[in-house]
Amino acid sequence: MSGQSYDDNNIFAKILRGEIPAHRVYEDDHTVAFMDVMPQAPGHLLVVPKSPSRNMLDADPAVLANTVQVVQKLARAAQEAFEADGITIMQFNEPAAGQTVFHLHFHVVPRHEGQPLKPHSGQMEDGEILKANAEKVRTALAG
Amino acid sequence: MSGQSYDDNNIFAKILRGEIPAHRVYEDDHTVAFMDVMPQAPGHLLVVPKSPSRNMLDADPAVLANTVQVVQKLARAAQEAFEADGITIMQFNEPAAGQTVFHLHFHVVPRHEGQPLKPHSGQMEDGEILKANAEKVRTALAG
Repeated sequence: MSGQSYDDNNIFAKILRGEIPAHRVYEDDHTVAFMDVMPQAPGHLLVVPKSPSRNMLDADPAVLANTVQVVQKLARAAQEAFEADGITIMQFNEPAAGQTVFHLHFHVVPRHEGQPLKPHSGQMEDGEILKANAEKVRTALAG
Repeated sequence: MSGQSYDDNNIFAKILRGEIPAHRVYEDDHTVAFMDVMPQAPGHLLVVPKSPSRNMLDADPAVLANTVQVVQKLARAAQEAFEADGITIMQFNEPAAGQTVFHLHFHVVPRHEGQPLKPHSGQMEDGEILKANAEKVRTALAG
């Protein structure tokens, strides 16, 4: 698996280039965050470094360090935005671990007591709901 | 939840102080890694910063940045040590997200095709198996 290379036609690379729309909630020089279109819970979002790597295994350590600080920022914002009881962070490396898009990303999933996660890569969420949830996260980030 | 405080009698704090044994695989000035005694898959290990925080939500960003780089190191070592097809990284914040020990930690779980994760906080693993797995990780780190 470590011999796998980066393919810049992956869907997140296309989102980063603006070729595909996404409900963006955060952007800085190095990192973008947007809503997962197949959320495992309401408010599920993804934090994605701009620089290309397939996953954590081939990532630049400095990029990882930067990215996890944005993950923290978004975890706190998501906690507030969705009045979450908890936040689950997941990061999958290779298909056996659940990775489906081969550009490094961290999942930030707001959790509520007694509500199990929906399956990964399950059902596509309604665009209006994603839009409204993105707005909640942006509001929390601005607050 | 953000009002929850850090309790230095948690089990990882005790491991860090050497009051409770653990199958340690890595240590540096800021971070320790050891085998999870209730592995969700063979080779499941935990990466734990020495400085106290309850979870990612209250962590020092600099500690997070440092810790994730050790997570990467251990993910690569675990991949090699267990000939894993993938690596799942998980980090839980508060009970609703699955957190059971309230000192920041990252789960590094080697994955193999077709082998689903066992439940979190499931069955205690045999000490001899944990010891042998720890030795595999140390060997991979040294290689």
